[in-house]
Parts: sequence; structure tokens; C-alpha cells
Amino acid sequence: MAAQIIDGKKIAAQVNEESRKEISMLARDHNFQPGLAVILIGEDPASQVYVNMKDRKCRELGIYSAKHVLAAATPQEEVLELIAQLNHDPKINGILVQSPPPPQIDEEQVVAAVDPAKDVDCFHPQNVGKMFIGRQDGFFPCTPYGVMVLLERSGIDPAGRHAVIVGRSNIVGKPMLALLVQKTAGANATVTCVHSRTRSLPELTRRADILIAAIGKPEFITADMIRENAVVVDVGMNRVEDAGTQRGYRLVGDVKFDEVAEKAAFITPVPGGVGPMTIAMLMHNTIKACKMQHGIKI
Amino acid sequence: MAAQIIDGKKIAAQVNEESRKEISMLARDHNFQPGLAVILIGEDPASQVYVNMKDRKCRELGIYSAKHVLAAATPQEEVLELIAQLNHDPKINGILVQSPPPPQIDEEQVVAAVDPAKDVDCFHPQNVGKMFIGRQDGFFPCTPYGVMVLLERSGIDPAGRHAVIVGRSNIVGKPMLALLVQKTAGANATVTCVHSRTRSLPELTRRADILIAAIGKPEFITADMIRENAVVVDVGMNRVEDAGTQRGYRLVGDVKFDEVAEKAAFITPVPGGVGPMTIAMLMHNTIKACKMQHGIKI
Repeated sequence: MAAQIIDGKKIAAQVNEESRKEISMLARDHNFQPGLAVILIGEDPASQVYVNMKDRKCRELGIYSAKHVLAAATPQEEVLELIAQLNHDPKINGILVQSPPPPQIDEEQVVAAVDPAKDVDCFHPQNVGKMFIGRQDGFFPCTPYGVMVLLERSGIDPAGRHAVIVGRSNIVGKPMLALLVQKTAGANATVTCVHSRTRSLPELTRRADILIAAIGKPEFITADMIRENAVVVDVGMNRVEDAGTQRGYRLVGDVKFDEVAEKAAFITPVPGGVGPMTIAMLMHNTIKACKMQHGIKI
Repeated sequence: MAAQIIDGKKIAAQVNEESRKEISMLARDHNFQPGLAVILIGEDPASQVYVNMKDRKCRELGIYSAKHVLAAATPQEEVLELIAQLNHDPKINGILVQSPPPPQIDEEQVVAAVDPAKDVDCFHPQNVGKMFIGRQDGFFPCTPYGVMVLLERSGIDPAGRHAVIVGRSNIVGKPMLALLVQKTAGANATVTCVHSRTRSLPELTRRADILIAAIGKPEFITADMIRENAVVVDVGMNRVEDAGTQRGYRLVGDVKFDEVAEKAAFITPVPGGVGPMTIAMLMHNTIKACKMQHGIKI
């Protein structure tokens, strides 16, 4: 195998260690403890797993964690009331509503109800806008932000390089475009976004110095679609049936790892690549929220 | 000359005619008149020209126009007070602060002070965010929106085509990226953004089915930088010295018009291309603001 593996677990552990130190300092110097409220509506098993992981990581690092589990049939107004209450709760610096909510919930309205200063997921349009125009006083969404940190800590400077993003979701593709194109250190990339409507997609992915796969199709990116020595970041996380495993499925990314790893210079594995960064950046954002709310320099 | 000229004056006149009809209907059916407040701080001659053009176009179409000219030395608080007053003025549906303001004014704070519902320039982060995530209930910034309308009314569907945007300003380059990549009719383009830090820029511009030049460099795009039969949209508006003219300068775009027009399939001239669309879309946005504020279907 030619490619150097970008070890997301290790980098996430570094970020978490830095967070832990920051939390200690906040306690020591200011007597503040950052607090995160996570709202889970319903019993989606995958959502439960994510929410429990976030809750556990908070406790591990010393962030106050408030987990609100609401019944699947909870009406919109109750969710909005809870958010209003958390917006005013001084113990809570960050609020997130686990996605996807059940069908009776209007997610757009729920997202808009969160105080932008506590919107650590960067789902509120105001924070999306701040990110896009290059302001640093909002939040960056956790997964794309995690990708930026992976690149930075692997010594990969996107400046002047061609980053090709496969996918245009609001959660990954579009914010990757926004973060990579900025006129700031660690960004400054030439950016291209390809997607379901793109003609001759492989021709464009082959031009990528940095390829970000976030299209949600198992093993979509094959070796013939990348350039020799590209940096390949796999944001995909797909379940494919596999009778040979105990669970009956295995997790694969959007990249055909084995063959792409032969050709790339750097590659993130799935799992253990981008995944662990998402929660690490959520913790980081919660600390940032706490500092901003208390007027402490970020 | 091979290229078909995209006549911005003509298309802007169509849009304005539609606006005039909408305004008549609003008056007839609802007894509403859309109102736009323009704030000019200082005496920058170019800004004065723009503000007067906007004021005149409002009157021409039947929009109530309130022009607020403040002294160059006006303190920040006075500007914020005026904005607060306009935010609450029911006669005013749109507010814009002519850019650039004098140095004592914090533009970021001024922009944030405008009620997002009246932010017809789409400078407020909340509207930028809504645009980026594909929501239709905010505003699109006037110049990029004008480019989208020029394409649409010239029968050019960006879907599946490669749009290359030269420049990454918050006013043109980035919003073009945002508008063209959306999963909506009239968009769906593969998008690339190239800029000052891009390596081998001509190689990428030559891949463009649609080239948007918004880099602010006179005649930067030459014929060898475009593909045969490309659509070339010139957002540039640069003054270059010209002793042969009465004013001592002439206006040129970012595209070397004569030679590019030989090779392109469509091209916008400067002046008379994108320019007239900006004010037409501002009028359009003001009407949209009026309708949204009154709960009328848009």
C-alpha cells in the first residue's frame, strides 16, 4: 500500500486532549464549565448511538452534558419550548437537536429556534452565512471542520491546490466548499463541487489534488477516478449487507479503500478517519461557545 | 464576431416591466406600495451615482423611495439608530446601506443591524446562509441573482454544465458558487471557483462551459483562456485610463471583449451586460420583501 493513512482516531484524541486542558483552564481561571444539551426526539437506534457517544465524550472531557430524550410523538411546540428554555439556561452553552427528527417536526423551524450563539452544529442560517463570508465568530459544522483539522494536522496545506468535493449536501459538501475556498490560512484552495448532475465526473475527480468524497454511495470512488498521489478524504459511512459478519452488515466509506490506497498519497480510513473528528469538533465548538458567551477571547 | 451578445439592458427592462406590473397589482389588490430606504454615508461620487440610480428606478417603477444622505463623519450610533427606525417603519420593506461606508463605520455591525426581512442586498449572514442551504425565503444578492436571470432568459440552463467562477468575493464570486450549485431548476451546475491563489488558472477556465469573470482585473480573461463556444459572463467594471475620452478613462470588464467574443457562444458586454441587472434585481427583491412582510405568497 502506497498511501499514508490519516489516523482520525489519533488526531481526534489530540483535539480532545487539548479540549480537556481548555476545560481545566476555564474551571481554574474563570470557574466556568462548558455545557452541552442534546435533544433526541424518538428512538431511532442510530441516533441513540450518536447521542450516547456525545454524552459520553462530554463527561469524559468535563463538559456538563444534558441529554433530553423526548417521545417520538412529541409535538413541535414542546420541542420549541424546550429549546427556548435551553436558550436561556446559563449552564448550557451549546444546543443540538439530533437529526433526523420524526416527521411531525419541522426541522427548519427547530434549527431557527436555537440561539445562534449556542448553535454548535452550525445548522442555523446565520452561522452558515458567517462561515461562508469568512467570519470566525460563528461556528463551523463539525464534520467539515473535522476534515479541515485532519488536513492541517497531516501537514497538508490546501493553498493553491485543487480540492474536488464529491457531493453537495448542506451537512458536508457545501460547507467543505465554503471552508476550503476562504482566503484564510489552512484554506485558499481552488474548489470544485461535483454531484449527481455532473457530466464526466471521473474526469474532474482525476484533477483533484485533494478529493473529498461525501456522496453517500458505498465505494463509489475507485482508483481510476483519482490522480496519482492525491489526498483522499472519505466522509462516507454506508452500511452494506455482509452475511459473513455478526451484525449482517459492514461499514464502508464512499471510497474503494484498498485500490485507492495503492494510488493515493494520503487516505482516511472508514471507520477511524473522519468519524472520530465530528464529535471532537463538537466538543471544541461547545468550548468556543462557552468562551464567546462569557466574553473570553477565543 | 461569433458570440451572441447577452443584452443586459433589454433583459433588465423586461424584469423591470414585470416589477412594475407586480407593483400595480399590489396597489390594486392590497393597497400596498413597496418601499426602499437607501442610506448613503459620505460623498463618494461613485456611491452617489449608484444611490441616485436606485432612487430613480424606484420612482420610475412606483416603489416608495427614501434616500437618507448622512454626513461623512456620522458616528456609528447614528447609523444604527436610523437603521433601527427603518426596521420599524411599515412604509419601508427594504433597507440598504451603500457600500463602502467611511472608515469610522463598522460595516459588519451595520449589516447585522438591518432586519433580515428587509435585507434586500442579502448582506446579512442569515440571508447568506439561507441562500447557501437552498432556502427561498431569504434574498439573493442582486448582482449574482442578476447573472442567474441573464442565463435563464438567454435559454442557458446550467444543469450538468461546468461553471467556472473567477474570483471569490463575498459580493459576487462566493454567492455565484452558492447559486449555481443548488439542486434547483436553473442551477445544478458543476462549479469551480478559481482565484488569486489558483495554480494553472487558464487550464481551469478553459474547462468552463459557463465562465463567470468577477476578479476585478481589467481584461484579464483573454481568448486563449476560454473554451470554444463557452458562455462568458463579465461581472467586472474597471476604469482604465484613456486620454482619448472626455472623462480621461473608459470602463472595461474583466474580459477582453473583442477577442473573447470571437470564440464564445454567448457573451455579456460591459457596460450593458450584468450592470443593469443589479438594480433590476434590487427592485425585484424589494417587492419580494414587501410581499413576505405582508404574508402574500411569493
